[in-house]
Amino acid sequence: MRPYEKDPGAIYAQSFATVRKEARLERFGPGMEALAIRLIHACGMVEVADRLAFSTEAYVAGHAALKAGAPILCDCEMVGAGIIRRYLPNNNRVIVTLNDATVPERAKSIGNTRSAAAVELWADQLEGAVVAIGNAPTALFHLLELLDSGAPKPAVILGFPVGFVGAAESKAELATNSRGCEFVALRGRRGGSAIASAAVNALAVGLPEEAQ
Amino acid sequence: MRPYEKDPGAIYAQSFATVRKEARLERFGPGMEALAIRLIHACGMVEVADRLAFSTEAYVAGHAALKAGAPILCDCEMVGAGIIRRYLPNNNRVIVTLNDATVPERAKSIGNTRSAAAVELWADQLEGAVVAIGNAPTALFHLLELLDSGAPKPAVILGFPVGFVGAAESKAELATNSRGCEFVALRGRRGGSAIASAAVNALAVGLPEEAQ
Repeated sequence: MRPYEKDPGAIYAQSFATVRKEARLERFGPGMEALAIRLIHACGMVEVADRLAFSTEAYVAGHAALKAGAPILCDCEMVGAGIIRRYLPNNNRVIVTLNDATVPERAKSIGNTRSAAAVELWADQLEGAVVAIGNAPTALFHLLELLDSGAPKPAVILGFPVGFVGAAESKAELATNSRGCEFVALRGRRGGSAIASAAVNALAVGLPEEAQ
Repeated sequence: MRPYEKDPGAIYAQSFATVRKEARLERFGPGMEALAIRLIHACGMVEVADRLAFSTEAYVAGHAALKAGAPILCDCEMVGAGIIRRYLPNNNRVIVTLNDATVPERAKSIGNTRSAAAVELWADQLEGAVVAIGNAPTALFHLLELLDSGAPKPAVILGFPVGFVGAAESKAELATNSRGCEFVALRGRRGGSAIASAAVNALAVGLPEEAQ
């Protein structure tokens, strides 16, 4: 077997150098640039940089919210599992309500998915929170519906649902009208929990591995 | 806001129908076809079907191992979090050793990453296991090194490390010489924990959502 790179510092350095060489990052400010690089690093595709939609203050607002202790509301366990706890600046809570015992019944009563029903359980935590959606289009759609009905506004919505039914559409809706919330979204079908977690980690600390 | 699909059954049906329409699935047998469809569903990219490398008996061997109660060895917490426990046929254990307290010291002593060191802690469980690597190229490289040194063989290696340093190379090495283990791997830089979990879920149950 051929030799391979075993030094974590060298692996990070070489990874980020490749991303910087290949990705189009010119349109991003410093915070969003770090976020774009972490996303690319999480999925192995430099071209996702070209499909990122975001509001001007998304990074600043998300970073400030985390520093102030905002909770992180995730649509599934995998997103929560990918958040690097030691990077969180204020011991922030990571909340996943998808497996709450009341969710199946609630899903039935609202005529929507379990992922959408789980979003309703965020109500008390929503104001000023960081929302990270990495799986279900219906979670993002329903969050936007709740905002339209007057639900409190999160600080930032990280929109990364994935797949073939509603993912592109829900992210397009977020990018068209984010209901007065800052947002980041990856247009199209691609997304997923690793990307959503990477966005949270970027809001928390930027790109510290590159400085090491 | 425009109406969107809220019925989980309809979402699954429409998703899988789109995948079947767009992806090239002709070269797969029934088990691998289900696995390819779950992978595509997890990442939103039909073209990954064209980059799947696999051994002929990979699906059958992996499915049989799970039925027989084999543990699932994962290289990171996110892979573990994405495995749908109710689909596992024999209450199989999901094992992640990355955060074991002994790992940092071991990484230092072997001169490799924590992900590689964590693989050494699988030794007792490795024989006949299902290995799912969704993050670290060094975990896959080091597993192959251990196999070369005579470590017990897993039933199947699901190789989905992601990124810019070693991901493509470690998967190419696995596909060239899987050391007598069955394997599935996504060639190139792409991969990740959602894809690795999807592969495990496919080995466990195939595609039951499509039949509903």
